[in-house]
Amino acid sequence: MENFVFYNPTKLVFGKNTVEKIGEYLKKDKVKRVLLLAGGGSIKKNGVYEKVVRSLMENSIEKIEVWGVRPNPVLSKVYEAIEVAKKEKVEAILAVGGGSVIDSAKAVAAGVLYEGDVWDFYLGRSNPKKALPLYAILTLSATGTEMNGNTVVTKEETLEKFAFGSIHVYPKLSIVDPEVQYTLPSNQTVNGAVDAISHVMEYYFDGTKRTDLIDRVDEGIISTLIETTEALLNDPKDYDARANFALATTLALNGVSGMGHRGGDWSSHAIEHALSALNPDVAHGAGLAVVFPAWMKYVYRKDPSKFRRFGRVIFRLKHSTPEKAIEALKKWYKKIGAPITLKELGFKREDIDELTEIAAKTAPMGKLVILEKEDIRKILEIAYEEE
Amino acid sequence: MENFVFYNPTKLVFGKNTVEKIGEYLKKDKVKRVLLLAGGGSIKKNGVYEKVVRSLMENSIEKIEVWGVRPNPVLSKVYEAIEVAKKEKVEAILAVGGGSVIDSAKAVAAGVLYEGDVWDFYLGRSNPKKALPLYAILTLSATGTEMNGNTVVTKEETLEKFAFGSIHVYPKLSIVDPEVQYTLPSNQTVNGAVDAISHVMEYYFDGTKRTDLIDRVDEGIISTLIETTEALLNDPKDYDARANFALATTLALNGVSGMGHRGGDWSSHAIEHALSALNPDVAHGAGLAVVFPAWMKYVYRKDPSKFRRFGRVIFRLKHSTPEKAIEALKKWYKKIGAPITLKELGFKREDIDELTEIAAKTAPMGKLVILEKEDIRKILEIAYEEE
Repeated sequence: MENFVFYNPTKLVFGKNTVEKIGEYLKKDKVKRVLLLAGGGSIKKNGVYEKVVRSLMENSIEKIEVWGVRPNPVLSKVYEAIEVAKKEKVEAILAVGGGSVIDSAKAVAAGVLYEGDVWDFYLGRSNPKKALPLYAILTLSATGTEMNGNTVVTKEETLEKFAFGSIHVYPKLSIVDPEVQYTLPSNQTVNGAVDAISHVMEYYFDGTKRTDLIDRVDEGIISTLIETTEALLNDPKDYDARANFALATTLALNGVSGMGHRGGDWSSHAIEHALSALNPDVAHGAGLAVVFPAWMKYVYRKDPSKFRRFGRVIFRLKHSTPEKAIEALKKWYKKIGAPITLKELGFKREDIDELTEIAAKTAPMGKLVILEKEDIRKILEIAYEEE
Repeated sequence: MENFVFYNPTKLVFGKNTVEKIGEYLKKDKVKRVLLLAGGGSIKKNGVYEKVVRSLMENSIEKIEVWGVRPNPVLSKVYEAIEVAKKEKVEAILAVGGGSVIDSAKAVAAGVLYEGDVWDFYLGRSNPKKALPLYAILTLSATGTEMNGNTVVTKEETLEKFAFGSIHVYPKLSIVDPEVQYTLPSNQTVNGAVDAISHVMEYYFDGTKRTDLIDRVDEGIISTLIETTEALLNDPKDYDARANFALATTLALNGVSGMGHRGGDWSSHAIEHALSALNPDVAHGAGLAVVFPAWMKYVYRKDPSKFRRFGRVIFRLKHSTPEKAIEALKKWYKKIGAPITLKELGFKREDIDELTEIAAKTAPMGKLVILEKEDIRKILEIAYEEE
């Protein structure tokens, strides 16, 4: 087990009828004027927007709205929201939506108080020293951004999909009401499951030895995601399945799943970012369903016993091997309707070159195995050819 | 699953060679003068005191020392430390020791800034509105107090062993260095294991339905404690066993193990408090090893499937029943050298009356089953007679 520091100051408010409490919480914190950041309008259909607006009104909190954050969020929208936030002198950012909205809101929160270009943070040229307080209402459980300090945004012009993390952009408060997710299209639940499972696996397979406790916690998160995804595909309004699913996605990336690890591997995430940078219609979760098993095939020889254990514990394989474990994961992804090849995502073989170029911008990458550009290409080739 | 709010602002600094960082952390927080609260002197034997003193000196931090916090800490020592803290105008409390020292330090931190009697908090007559910042260096993993806002103290005159919880007394920073625990007597490791397992079981068996994810997390914590306790009895200097044990005790009571639960049952803890109030030589963990299985026997009919699951998952019983599961737990307690009857703790049958009286001061208690005074007596009788 490795040394670690855990510090997570986000207050998580979880459960039924919690969205309508946002106004009270803001009032308690003496916030009077917020920038409400949102996506394409789903929060108007599922009733969340109405509840938020009423709660803000009842607590005399003014709001300025910026709409249009899209999946795989882009830098131009962040710039737009920063301008509005500055002009309107808001005291806090209120993100209402899924991971893309909250990730963008983190950039806005830090960007408003930064003299330079917010993209500097993503390039690693500067670190946020402060940020406006961020409040989040999560409407799609997947990325875990509601309880961490990470954000991923794409710069359209260069197809760079980069991330940064800062203690200053942890949401001060995040509300997770599983009921508002009853109406999600099933593919979004599936993508969320794959994303969260991948987050846990990035730690689980990073090669750290004797992480006995967190291995069990991580296996518990993955097993719960598998079980509840199947339950939700069967009945999207199974409250307890939604709740356990949602909590699992939060714990998958709030620091607990990586305690005592050496930071996670994150190669699969970096490679996936190239996929959705090149084609923004590729959902992050769908991309991960394709890339992660390919990465596993490429690297498992470095730590075969862990991959064997994965198959035994998660898929209850009696005679588990790394290969069988990876096949079991792919089979399950297929079962829930996730893609497992680059082909299915609409990529052509000749795209591998460009994907490699984009992904290699952050190479060398990884922990279990350090990947150079040629390794990335080989993984993409596995991801393409696989049945 | 129940609604819940999770908020835990403690920064956990975990691993090798972390004790000596305390001065830097205090300096970063601009603390210049601390009250160092400690126990009976074990921190001088294990080298922790020397490291702390050097680190404080190197960072120009003054300290005033108060020694003598004993296991099952008492109110009189808290009063003494509050007086010193006030007189010496310290800016923070630095607790160096086990759960008793940290619990006492929480009372001191809140008591210094309170006009009235700090015992008011334990009586529920008042709640802390503020507290001095608390820093902790944990030298005995057991109670989980290093990452929560709970404190338990005994008032000697009345034998009342009461608790309170407040967001204001969460340690701002807790350092857990597993290596400093290499020299612990094995019975302290055993008591720590029983205490932490009991914390998790208070939630696990509180009767909440469909806590799928946290059941798995809780089972992971318990299984890890079982495995690492055995490893440590065999080799007290097995670093990874110490580290996983320590982390398990922290997660057992930092809020994660109870997410989505209805607050835990806590009857066994309340009954145990009577034991160590009447006889301060009874370690909290030892008392719990006796009381918890007796409580289980008394209540399991209310939720037999959960007790069956416990036997199946934790002790891998092929044909688990609640009775077999409880027997397996007692057998394991016996195996590691924990007492399992009141007799072994030195109590006589006639003590049951007084124990009942003391414990019943907080009756009715419990969640899975609401216990009145007569229920408590019956549980104590089971605890006495059991072989």
